[in-house]
Amino acid sequence: MLHEVLSGRRLTKLEYEHELPKLQDRLLDAQFELRGSRARAVAMIVTGIPGAGRSEVVNELLGWLDPKFVTVYGFREPDEVERQRPPLWRYWRVMPPRGRIAILHAGWYAEFLRESVLQPNRPAATVRREIERIRSLERMLVADGVAVVKVHLHVGPELQRRRLRKLRADKTTRWRVTPEDLWLARHFGRVERALEHCLEVTGQPEVPWHLVDGTDRQHRALEVGRVLLAGLEGRMAPAAGRALPRVAARLRRAAKSVKPAPGHRGPPVAEEDYERELERLQGRLALLSRRRKFAKHSVVVAFEGMDAAGKGGAIRRITAALDARQFRVVPISAPSPEELARPYLWRFWCQLPRRGNYTIFDRSWYGRVLVERVRGLAAQADWRRAYGEINEFERQLMEHRLVVAKFWMSVSPEEQLARFEERDRNPLKRFKVDPEDWTNRKLWAAYGRAARDMLALTNTRHAPWQVIPADDKRHARLLVLRRLCERLESVID
Amino acid sequence: MLHEVLSGRRLTKLEYEHELPKLQDRLLDAQFELRGSRARAVAMIVTGIPGAGRSEVVNELLGWLDPKFVTVYGFREPDEVERQRPPLWRYWRVMPPRGRIAILHAGWYAEFLRESVLQPNRPAATVRREIERIRSLERMLVADGVAVVKVHLHVGPELQRRRLRKLRADKTTRWRVTPEDLWLARHFGRVERALEHCLEVTGQPEVPWHLVDGTDRQHRALEVGRVLLAGLEGRMAPAAGRALPRVAARLRRAAKSVKPAPGHRGPPVAEEDYERELERLQGRLALLSRRRKFAKHSVVVAFEGMDAAGKGGAIRRITAALDARQFRVVPISAPSPEELARPYLWRFWCQLPRRGNYTIFDRSWYGRVLVERVRGLAAQADWRRAYGEINEFERQLMEHRLVVAKFWMSVSPEEQLARFEERDRNPLKRFKVDPEDWTNRKLWAAYGRAARDMLALTNTRHAPWQVIPADDKRHARLLVLRRLCERLESVID
Repeated sequence: MLHEVLSGRRLTKLEYEHELPKLQDRLLDAQFELRGSRARAVAMIVTGIPGAGRSEVVNELLGWLDPKFVTVYGFREPDEVERQRPPLWRYWRVMPPRGRIAILHAGWYAEFLRESVLQPNRPAATVRREIERIRSLERMLVADGVAVVKVHLHVGPELQRRRLRKLRADKTTRWRVTPEDLWLARHFGRVERALEHCLEVTGQPEVPWHLVDGTDRQHRALEVGRVLLAGLEGRMAPAAGRALPRVAARLRRAAKSVKPAPGHRGPPVAEEDYERELERLQGRLALLSRRRKFAKHSVVVAFEGMDAAGKGGAIRRITAALDARQFRVVPISAPSPEELARPYLWRFWCQLPRRGNYTIFDRSWYGRVLVERVRGLAAQADWRRAYGEINEFERQLMEHRLVVAKFWMSVSPEEQLARFEERDRNPLKRFKVDPEDWTNRKLWAAYGRAARDMLALTNTRHAPWQVIPADDKRHARLLVLRRLCERLESVID
Repeated sequence: MLHEVLSGRRLTKLEYEHELPKLQDRLLDAQFELRGSRARAVAMIVTGIPGAGRSEVVNELLGWLDPKFVTVYGFREPDEVERQRPPLWRYWRVMPPRGRIAILHAGWYAEFLRESVLQPNRPAATVRREIERIRSLERMLVADGVAVVKVHLHVGPELQRRRLRKLRADKTTRWRVTPEDLWLARHFGRVERALEHCLEVTGQPEVPWHLVDGTDRQHRALEVGRVLLAGLEGRMAPAAGRALPRVAARLRRAAKSVKPAPGHRGPPVAEEDYERELERLQGRLALLSRRRKFAKHSVVVAFEGMDAAGKGGAIRRITAALDARQFRVVPISAPSPEELARPYLWRFWCQLPRRGNYTIFDRSWYGRVLVERVRGLAAQADWRRAYGEINEFERQLMEHRLVVAKFWMSVSPEEQLARFEERDRNPLKRFKVDPEDWTNRKLWAAYGRAARDMLALTNTRHAPWQVIPADDKRHARLLVLRRLCERLESVID
């Protein structure tokens, strides 16, 4: 039982007043350093049972720190907009940028703790996925420089009852006790067992839980402050092995299993056939996107491919079939300072569509394992872990009925060269010309290897790749539309 | 009748193919220059009656421009999250940063056009406010460097009927015709009269409407392209007179009407009285924020005052009474590059709370007429127009049941000095020390003048100022809580 292992420590006022200035001094130092470093952030999760003093502790912490660089977030029941996105979406949106601290009341544990208490007998597979989502999120955050500090405040059943009773006795504090709090207090044993299990399965070496005794107001504040200090000073995460041997082995296998390339050129399509077929497929997509069942889903389309592979053209053929209010096209280029300050998946999470809508990414999160790998913009350990992180990301989308469609536009070096030269000649295509493109072209072989690994390691059941021979534009555009329709039909029906 | 004044122009394919490359060339040039200038943005509004070709035209434009720097937005019926904020909130959120183009389908005309057609007989005062909101938004955008380009596509009743019939005859295009479209087509005369009125009352010299004949597919595309070009090249807004004489006169009046200063020091409060009264007021605020009626409102609190006036301390006394999920504290300092790239009110619009919630600004939009005025960070014409813009902003909040409470923490120079020295001595308050503070102190008189003007020109019925004598911290904190409670009670009951 959790409350039996509580420290039971108490502080006299004198002890507290002796300890606090030293702690606050170190906290301010550490916060100052965090701001300066611009390499790390802190996400602190505070959970606790009713009456253990969660809000009071957070308020106290705020008084010690420079509040300009700390933000506190509480989360209610998900609203309409949040329910349309995967459960972790609302936490991704408030991810602290480097240099800052976010304190989250319950944070991404809110749903898990709640379900564990109220529905302890839900299917084991469901529980496993809830745990795995949290664990992989936290591993990724830590790897990306966000220290995750987790504190659970706890008290014994008698003290809890006493505190709630006292709060309820006064009409100015009665509101603090919700009906849910009372229910939780009445089921103390059951709640405690559920919590104990949650803390156990979601602790990881680099992201441990800290159980804090909420009995003594002063002791608990100092304790939580010390835990935050450890997170601020980077003493939380033991240096994790940066190599990921499982991926390394899979990369070697991918390199060996050289499949015959799918070819760059599909059969040519005559102009009148193209126009007719294009209209037919756009009509099919339009009807699909209007179906009643479609409104329960949303669609995330990712386009990848070498420069001039025809991504933009294919995208415009899709959007022409859709209602303007139904889609957003998001071109992805080098991240902005805002984006660079957060884990790399952040900007994609923030763009997830609501129900019945499309987000179409012109280049995507795969930049991590393509351009960032090839151009050395991400460390090897970072792009190697990205395969797993991306699979987990896409899986969460699929689990929440966001259909993921991924297209690799496969163009040959000869065709690319011809298109570059055409662009250089035609002033109306000048916005498509970028000196970078020529540099990337020289790295063709390296991009090829990166693409091969990507296709091998992220071609999952829930988010398969479509490789589109792209040397013939008409053929490619029709094929993209057809595959997209098929994918949507297979999911919706 | 609008359709009787349409140009009726048609283009042959040859004419179109002759004109298009020249136009596209200029568009690309202008877009390139826009990106480079980093001083201007374009917000393009496209409205039109069903069958006039709105979506087609926008799709065509997108094919001509560099799509990486253009975003298209469509708007459905407001969702739960949008309904909780003032009507213009969702348009503010997508305001294009400098260097970029946003194309908005109907945009901030969506609600106005709809109401005008469906409820032509709503009260004149309502209509006047709808118009004034739009007009003042557009004036502000133009003054802030956002060219507002407005296009209305129109066709005659026969052609509209023919087009809708054709779309409905084909099952792959039938979805494009909504029941609303059919209703609008059946009531052509009434719709047209309403539109004509809307265009008339919302045209302004610097933001005119462009009526485009939607009859000929090629002519309409070129026409709209040319209008966008004019906006991109900054040929839309005639150089407006930058001086605002009415404000100038009111500023002079404010300077003359020197009222006795309300004093900096309230009666001293003994510690035990303070603790008791604080708890009582926090309880009162807590109960208020829990009342059923409160859930229909939200609260925006703005704190202003010289450095060390005690804003942070007063804020913490408020938040201690609130549920962590119910408030957000937003400290305002120098704008980030993201924020600088948009009209100055943008970052405040984005932070508006949902129903039942508080946003508390530690410094606010009044920075425009305080620090930006005093330190010369905003041009005189810009801070002078801000008084009216701010009043309009706060009025929109009030109209949507967002209670605005504004506190000016009035500290004396002697007390400020004492607090600065205390901060310098106490290492635990070092995060509060900023070399800027000493500079600001030297500008005390200038800040005083700016504050006086601000209090005189923005003390409106819907958002009155509370001037708080702040030399005595206890008295100030209690008074802030009391005034906040009173303000909420007066609005809620």
